[in-house]
Amino acid sequence: MSLRAAVVVTGTEVLTGIISDANGPWVSQKLRELGATVAQVSVVGDRRDDLRAVLEFLAAQQVDLIVTSGGLGPTADDLTAEVVADFTGRNMALDEALEQRIWTILERLSRGMRGVDEQAMRAGNRKQAIIPEGADILEPVGTAPGLVVQSTQPGRPTVIVLPGPPRELQPMWREALNTEAVRSVLARAEPLERRFMRLFGIPEAELARSLRELEGTGISFDGLEVTTCLRRGEIEIATLFRLQAAETYRSFAAALAARHGDVLFSPDGKTVDDKVAELLSDRSIATAESCTGGMLAARLTDRPGSSAYVFGGLVVYANEAKIALAGVPPELLADHGAVSVQVAGALADAARTRFDAAVGVGITGVAGPGGGSENKPVGTVCLSAALEGRRIDRTVRLPGERAMIRERSTTVAMHMVRRLLEGHDDVPGR
Amino acid sequence: MSLRAAVVVTGTEVLTGIISDANGPWVSQKLRELGATVAQVSVVGDRRDDLRAVLEFLAAQQVDLIVTSGGLGPTADDLTAEVVADFTGRNMALDEALEQRIWTILERLSRGMRGVDEQAMRAGNRKQAIIPEGADILEPVGTAPGLVVQSTQPGRPTVIVLPGPPRELQPMWREALNTEAVRSVLARAEPLERRFMRLFGIPEAELARSLRELEGTGISFDGLEVTTCLRRGEIEIATLFRLQAAETYRSFAAALAARHGDVLFSPDGKTVDDKVAELLSDRSIATAESCTGGMLAARLTDRPGSSAYVFGGLVVYANEAKIALAGVPPELLADHGAVSVQVAGALADAARTRFDAAVGVGITGVAGPGGGSENKPVGTVCLSAALEGRRIDRTVRLPGERAMIRERSTTVAMHMVRRLLEGHDDVPGR
Repeated sequence: MSLRAAVVVTGTEVLTGIISDANGPWVSQKLRELGATVAQVSVVGDRRDDLRAVLEFLAAQQVDLIVTSGGLGPTADDLTAEVVADFTGRNMALDEALEQRIWTILERLSRGMRGVDEQAMRAGNRKQAIIPEGADILEPVGTAPGLVVQSTQPGRPTVIVLPGPPRELQPMWREALNTEAVRSVLARAEPLERRFMRLFGIPEAELARSLRELEGTGISFDGLEVTTCLRRGEIEIATLFRLQAAETYRSFAAALAARHGDVLFSPDGKTVDDKVAELLSDRSIATAESCTGGMLAARLTDRPGSSAYVFGGLVVYANEAKIALAGVPPELLADHGAVSVQVAGALADAARTRFDAAVGVGITGVAGPGGGSENKPVGTVCLSAALEGRRIDRTVRLPGERAMIRERSTTVAMHMVRRLLEGHDDVPGR
Repeated sequence: MSLRAAVVVTGTEVLTGIISDANGPWVSQKLRELGATVAQVSVVGDRRDDLRAVLEFLAAQQVDLIVTSGGLGPTADDLTAEVVADFTGRNMALDEALEQRIWTILERLSRGMRGVDEQAMRAGNRKQAIIPEGADILEPVGTAPGLVVQSTQPGRPTVIVLPGPPRELQPMWREALNTEAVRSVLARAEPLERRFMRLFGIPEAELARSLRELEGTGISFDGLEVTTCLRRGEIEIATLFRLQAAETYRSFAAALAARHGDVLFSPDGKTVDDKVAELLSDRSIATAESCTGGMLAARLTDRPGSSAYVFGGLVVYANEAKIALAGVPPELLADHGAVSVQVAGALADAARTRFDAAVGVGITGVAGPGGGSENKPVGTVCLSAALEGRRIDRTVRLPGERAMIRERSTTVAMHMVRRLLEGHDDVPGR
């Protein structure tokens, strides 16, 4: 059993890098989970010949299933349906019932809009309802219908034609999977399980060495496709495997936990944001930030429902603000400098008392590019997380540039809050 | 004169969507600016046959220049150099001087690292120094050298081989442009100018109609490649043109300014963040945010040097915090609700007074998904920007989901601050 698939993203804006493509990676992941081997993801412009050429190339590469995104709009340079009809050996024909259904959507959308050109809208509507004969229609989420088109010649790829906007493409992809045409192709593949683990406090190179050593000790990774990647200062391990390798995955995960239990904070894929939200539940939190300038508060309030436990925060960027708003003693600033564990601690305490919150977090650091010194180079960040009677203080040196230093500081803070709420007095690892 | 180019990104992690590719769009933009027509950007896995097949496909498509990224590491599945040698008809050979230069880098990088396997490092080092005979070497920024490889057969594409990490690829790309081999290919194309304009307060559909009408009035767009795209709630117009069309671009820009001068805030491509930073210069700013939870403060402090004018901010998510920290009168909350221009105004004033700042900004809104009502549905955001004696208040209904509503709120706030500092009492447009 094996299934080769490919993704073709169309659109000059995407090709020229003006807008970034989210569909290629998304569809590719979904195809992989369904057990397909993804041969390639191609981005082509809105040019008939280029699109046709890449489809023929993929057919020659023994690809069984092609997913396209984009090129389904109402204008003449939206030519995916037409090119796919040609590629699959089908004629284009007007589907009048579809034309009517799209019109109903267009009427609803244009209600109350000024200066609507009804004639142009009718023409675009008709164009979108002209589709390859015999294709399955995926009902529009926006105004463009998607298609599933089987080739009239045996052995040639089946094509799933989806619109470009991700919020349309994603539900229509799910609809495509329910068509008989796609099911019959997917029957050639065996779906894969995907599991995640997350670690914090271990360098990627050290984990890579550890994985090599685990293999050396006779633990079999057979049937596991393991990928590690660095995200926001954490390591994510993604593993794909067929159902029959589930036991192997359990051994692998157990061996990893035995070796790195201290830094493996998420054996089940939960993010630190999930964990902190769960741990807070009925406890409240407040922040006092200098170098991160509100990013930690923004991260905490990212989640729907966070108003239940986030009371608020102070952004005390200027030293005057640290004194006036957070009540940091001027002597503390003078004696230890604004970037010090002492000041971070005072900020955490201020966050707790000012907002009457259970947990307070303080962050102060040198985000750069200026402001570094020999003792406190760019990337030096002092953090403090405090509860009634207990606290964790930490100084870290973060790599990268300003934006990365600021983002990673919030990740360190989240882990300090997690550990504090789990009842610990430190964050393991480096 | 015409030059066809293509980009091939290699790497299973990129292909399967685990990490997102920044190189394809980046190189594609650069190629376009050099005047090339980009035929396609392809992502392929670390499989010899797939990479070779896509290179042959591009050669058959009359592509003159191919840029690859990735697959230059020290391990066996890094096979780009080898496949490209084959494709260009060249043998692989060890470059001993290069091997030595890479070793010097590796020695420096591994200094102080624990458990370094010198034998493995030597083997990887040698592998990276085995390159196609006669290729130009692009000196490593990390440890991997890049290559410029001309085909031994006339009429076949020249290949620029670059490593995957963007911080290595980008400087090495610039080095590649200086090689004689690349220069001779680029001589077939004419470089393009790229200009940006930005608008705020006009729907994309309305601008599209306006551009069509401009063409109807006899203004020629000949030689201009105009793209519009929505970014963070603003519209960006990117235009590419050859130098001889510079006059056409000036007329186009002038016609657009005559029609949309009220909402065309940036005729020169400056962002609203640039403008606000310039306008603030020696004036200070502070914020008081509810629904954006610190995102505006974070956006303002994104910029290096922002400590000169950002004093700080309050995140007053809970009503208790609005009262206690920002001094919002409880009656105001009771009478008008937390999401009201009255409360936004009180927050802006509190930001000014609490931080002793020249400009204060207040934001309060319903970011969703919960909390909406008939009168104040999700997306309703009230904002206020205040200076001594002058202010702009605004209520907007923003589209999209929580994250988008929060981000767009910060964009609206930035434009209110810009207009206030420019001496106006409103923000034009919708």
